[in-house]
Amino acid sequence: MTKSKTFAGYFFEDYYVGQVIAHAVPRTVTEGDRAVYQSLYPSRFAVASSDEFARACGFEKSPVDDLIAFHVVFGKTVPDISLNAVANLGYADGRFLRRVYPGDTLTSSSEVIGLKQNSNGKSGVVYVRTTGRNQHGEEVLTYCRWVMVRKRDVDAPATDTVVPDLPDVVSADKLVVPDGLSFAGYDHALAGEKHGWGDYAPGERIDHVDAVTVEDAEHMMATRLWQNTAKVHFDTTVRDDGSRLVYGGHVISIARALSFNGLANAQFIAAINSGAHANPCVAGTTIGAWSEVLERSETAVPDVGALRLRTVATSRKDVGFELRGDNGRYLPHVLLDLDYWVFMPV
Amino acid sequence: MTKSKTFAGYFFEDYYVGQVIAHAVPRTVTEGDRAVYQSLYPSRFAVASSDEFARACGFEKSPVDDLIAFHVVFGKTVPDISLNAVANLGYADGRFLRRVYPGDTLTSSSEVIGLKQNSNGKSGVVYVRTTGRNQHGEEVLTYCRWVMVRKRDVDAPATDTVVPDLPDVVSADKLVVPDGLSFAGYDHALAGEKHGWGDYAPGERIDHVDAVTVEDAEHMMATRLWQNTAKVHFDTTVRDDGSRLVYGGHVISIARALSFNGLANAQFIAAINSGAHANPCVAGTTIGAWSEVLERSETAVPDVGALRLRTVATSRKDVGFELRGDNGRYLPHVLLDLDYWVFMPV
Amino acid sequence: MTKSKTFAGYFFEDYYVGQVIAHAVPRTVTEGDRAVYQSLYPSRFAVASSDEFARACGFEKSPVDDLIAFHVVFGKTVPDISLNAVANLGYADGRFLRRVYPGDTLTSSSEVIGLKQNSNGKSGVVYVRTTGRNQHGEEVLTYCRWVMVRKRDVDAPATDTVVPDLPDVVSADKLVVPDGLSFAGYDHALAGEKHGWGDYAPGERIDHVDAVTVEDAEHMMATRLWQNTAKVHFDTTVRDDGSRLVYGGHVISIARALSFNGLANAQFIAAINSGAHANPCVAGTTIGAWSEVLERSETAVPDVGALRLRTVATSRKDVGFELRGDNGRYLPHVLLDLDYWVFMPV
Repeated sequence: MTKSKTFAGYFFEDYYVGQVIAHAVPRTVTEGDRAVYQSLYPSRFAVASSDEFARACGFEKSPVDDLIAFHVVFGKTVPDISLNAVANLGYADGRFLRRVYPGDTLTSSSEVIGLKQNSNGKSGVVYVRTTGRNQHGEEVLTYCRWVMVRKRDVDAPATDTVVPDLPDVVSADKLVVPDGLSFAGYDHALAGEKHGWGDYAPGERIDHVDAVTVEDAEHMMATRLWQNTAKVHFDTTVRDDGSRLVYGGHVISIARALSFNGLANAQFIAAINSGAHANPCVAGTTIGAWSEVLERSETAVPDVGALRLRTVATSRKDVGFELRGDNGRYLPHVLLDLDYWVFMPV
Repeated sequence: MTKSKTFAGYFFEDYYVGQVIAHAVPRTVTEGDRAVYQSLYPSRFAVASSDEFARACGFEKSPVDDLIAFHVVFGKTVPDISLNAVANLGYADGRFLRRVYPGDTLTSSSEVIGLKQNSNGKSGVVYVRTTGRNQHGEEVLTYCRWVMVRKRDVDAPATDTVVPDLPDVVSADKLVVPDGLSFAGYDHALAGEKHGWGDYAPGERIDHVDAVTVEDAEHMMATRLWQNTAKVHFDTTVRDDGSRLVYGGHVISIARALSFNGLANAQFIAAINSGAHANPCVAGTTIGAWSEVLERSETAVPDVGALRLRTVATSRKDVGFELRGDNGRYLPHVLLDLDYWVFMPV
Repeated sequence: MTKSKTFAGYFFEDYYVGQVIAHAVPRTVTEGDRAVYQSLYPSRFAVASSDEFARACGFEKSPVDDLIAFHVVFGKTVPDISLNAVANLGYADGRFLRRVYPGDTLTSSSEVIGLKQNSNGKSGVVYVRTTGRNQHGEEVLTYCRWVMVRKRDVDAPATDTVVPDLPDVVSADKLVVPDGLSFAGYDHALAGEKHGWGDYAPGERIDHVDAVTVEDAEHMMATRLWQNTAKVHFDTTVRDDGSRLVYGGHVISIARALSFNGLANAQFIAAINSGAHANPCVAGTTIGAWSEVLERSETAVPDVGALRLRTVATSRKDVGFELRGDNGRYLPHVLLDLDYWVFMPV
C-alpha cells in the first residue's frame, strides 16, 4: 500500500539531543471540553466547577481543570513522541505555570533532552521536555517524560548516550502560585470539606472510598478529546487479547477526581514530581484511589499552602496502602503511582 | 484504613427537623452541558434547542432544558441526603421558578422538613425541601423529596416523628409562567407538532412510539455531569449482581425526551407533582414511554396553557397503559411514574 | 393504543413532486457540539480545531467541522423523509455553501424532486433536495438524497414517475470557496503535514493507517446529537439480530477523521458528489479507511486548490484498495464509498 503521504511516527534513530519538535494541530479549549470532562470524570473541585467560586478566589472566571491542559498538551506529543513507543517510562519536573480558560488556544512542543540506546540495540529511551503554550505564547505547563522507542533499523548506529539530570521532586520554591489567587475568603462549606492545608500531616493516608468501573466508550471519548492518536486505545485488533489499553491519563483523571473525597480543597495541581503507570488498565476495571501526604510547604502567598501528595489508583478496592511486593515491584492491583504538588487554602 | 478526612454521608440520626444543609460545589451551567445532554437524550423541544426559537417566545436566548437544572440541583444533594439511602421514596411540590441559562451558576440547599423512624429501628424516612438558586440568589426550582436512610447506630434514640403535609398535586395557581414568555407567535411547524393545549383532553393517552436501549457509559456520563456521586451508579462491585443501577433521573430525562413524539409543544416543565421510580433500571433495558393527560388549566398568560401529565417509562414496549397489577403494586415493566405540569401554547 | 397525537412518518404515497417540507426543530450549534464531536471522532483538522489557526486562514474564529453542519441538517430530515425508509440509496450534488459558527441556528427543509414507485407496488424511491439555512436565512449546504420508502397502503395508486437529472459529480466551477479564505500564510507544520494540493496526483491511493473499534454508546450519542430519531440506531428490539445499526453519517465522520493521516491539509469539504453506505455497520466493527485521489482543480482563489477524493471506510484493515467483487457489487468489508471535493492549500 502507498504510505508516502502518511506519517509512521519517529523511530529512535530519528531523534537527536537538542532537537525541537513543534507538535501539530493547535487546539482551542472551550466550555464544551469542560462539560465532556465533567461527564467522563466525577470531578467536583469547586474552582473548576464554578465561575462564582473562581471569582471569589481572585480569578475572572473559572479556569478549566488543570488536567484538561495537561491532556491537551500531552495529546499533541503522541504522534511525534510515543507513536512507536514500547513503554511510557516516567515523568519528572512537571510544573503548571498558568491557568487555561475557555477560549484559550494551546500548542505544544518538545525538546529532546536525552537519548540512551538499549543494550539489545532494538530500541532506546528518549527523554523530552514538553511545553504547552497559550495563544499569547505564554507557557502554561512544562514536564519531562521519557519513553522507550523502537528503532526502525536495528543496524542504525547508536547515538551517544545523554541522560538528563532530572529532579526527583520539584522543589517547593519552584511552584508557581496562580496569578491573583487568594484563598482569603475561601468558603469551605461550598467547596465540600472543612480541612485546610494545616490539617494534613506528612505520613497521613486517605482512602478515597469511591470507585468507578471503566467503560471502553468513556476512555476512548476522553482520549480522542485530547487528540491522542495512539492506536492501542482505539483499535481492538492491535493487542493480542482484543482489549483496548486505557490511556494512562484517563487513570490519572479518574484518580484525581476520586481524590475529592478527602482532598476537596486541593483546588490546583501545582506540579507533577513523578508518575508511573504501574500496570495496564482495560475496560471493566473498577478503579479506586488512595493518597498519602508526603510533604507540606508554605508558598509566597500567605493563605495558599502547598501539599505534596502520592495518589495511587488501584484496580481493586479495600486493598490497603501497600504499593510494592517483596520483590520491590508494584503490586498487580496498582495502576498508577502519582507524586504531585497541590495548592490548598491554609 | 484512615477515613478521617473523607465523608461517609449523613445517617438517619444526624438529621433534625429545621436543619438546613448547604450542599457543596457550585456549578456553572454552560452550552457544553446542553450539548452533552443532547447527546445523551433524544431531546428535541424547540425552546431548549434553538436561540432563535426561544427569542420568538420572548426570551433573550435559549434556556437550558428544565431537567438540566433539576439534575444539577438534585446531584448536589446526594452526598448529604441520599448517600446512605436505602430507597428514594417520593417527590412532591416540585416547582420550576426561573429558567437557567448558560453562564448561570447553581447552588443547592435542603431543609429537613420531616423525620420518621421505621418500626424496625434500623432506618427512617427523611423528608427534605431542596431549593436551587442561581448566582443572584434567585430560586430556580424547589421540590420535596423523601428517602429512607440507614441509621449509623441502631441503638440511637428515635427522634419525634414529624410528617410534613405535602400536596398531592401542585395547584395550578401556584405554577410560575416564565417571565416574558409568550406563545403568541409560536411556530407549530418548526416546533414539530400542530397540537396545542386545547387539543389535549383529560383521560387521553399517548403512546410515544420510540424507545432507546440504555448503555452503561451513557447513564454514567449523565450522572457524573450532575456531580451525583452515588456509588451504585458507577461501581459494579457494589451490587450483588454486578450491575450498575441507572440513576432515576436518567430515566426521567429519557421519558421526557421520548415524549416529544406526541407532546412536542410541551416546551416547559412547570411542576413535578409526584414521581415514583417503580422498578430499578440497568443497562441493556429498552426504555419506552407513554403519557396520560390528567388535567388542564389556564394560566395568567392568555396564550400559555398548563397541562398536567402522567408520563410512564417502561422496560418493554407495546405493553398497553396498565400501571399496576391486581395487588395494587406497579407492574414489573413500569420504571417511572411521573406526574407533572407542563406549559404549552394554547 | 391511541396514536393520534404521534407522527408515524410519511409513506411513499404521501409525497408529491414539488412538495416542500420544512423540517422541525431549529438547532443552535455551539462549542459544546464541537467538543462532543471531538470526543466521538478522532478529528484533528486545524481550522476546525483552533480559533487561532482559523484566524490565520482569514476567518473571525473557528467554524465547526463541515460534517457537524451536515449532520444537523440531515438529522432534521429523518422524521419526514426516512422514518419509513427501507434503504438510503444515494447522495448527489451536495455543496457546502457557508461555514457554520458556534451560535448559529440551523433549520432544514426538503423539496421532493422525484418519485418512482417500485414494480412490486409496495414501496418507491423518493428523491429530495435538502437545504440547510442559518438564522439569517442564508443557505449553508444543500444536497440531494434518495431513499426507498414503504407505502402505507399497497393499493394506493402509483404516482407518475419523475426521475431527476442529477450530476454524477459536482463540477469544479460550482464549488464555493469560503468567504475570506486564504491559505497564503498557511502553517503546514502546525497543520500536521507538509503536502499541498500540488503533491496529490489523480490515481494516488492513501492508506490512512489508523482504525477505531465502534461502541454502541458512541454512535448513539452522535446520532442523538443531530436529533436523528431513526429507531434502528437506538432500539435493540427493532432488528432481528438485536443489534443497533450505526447511523451512516457516523461512519462518514469516522472515515473523514481517520483521513487526517495523509490528508491533514484537506481543511474543508467543498462538495459531496456521491456516497454509498455499501454494507451495514454495527458496534464492535473496527473501521479503517483509505482514499483515492480522483481529480484536481484550481479555484478562483490562487492559494486554494480543490481535490476530488474517494474515501472508503472498511470493516477490516489491510484489505488493499479493492472496492467491488467480480459480480460488480461492493465487497463485504466495504462500509462506505464517499466521493467528495475538499479545499486544500496549493
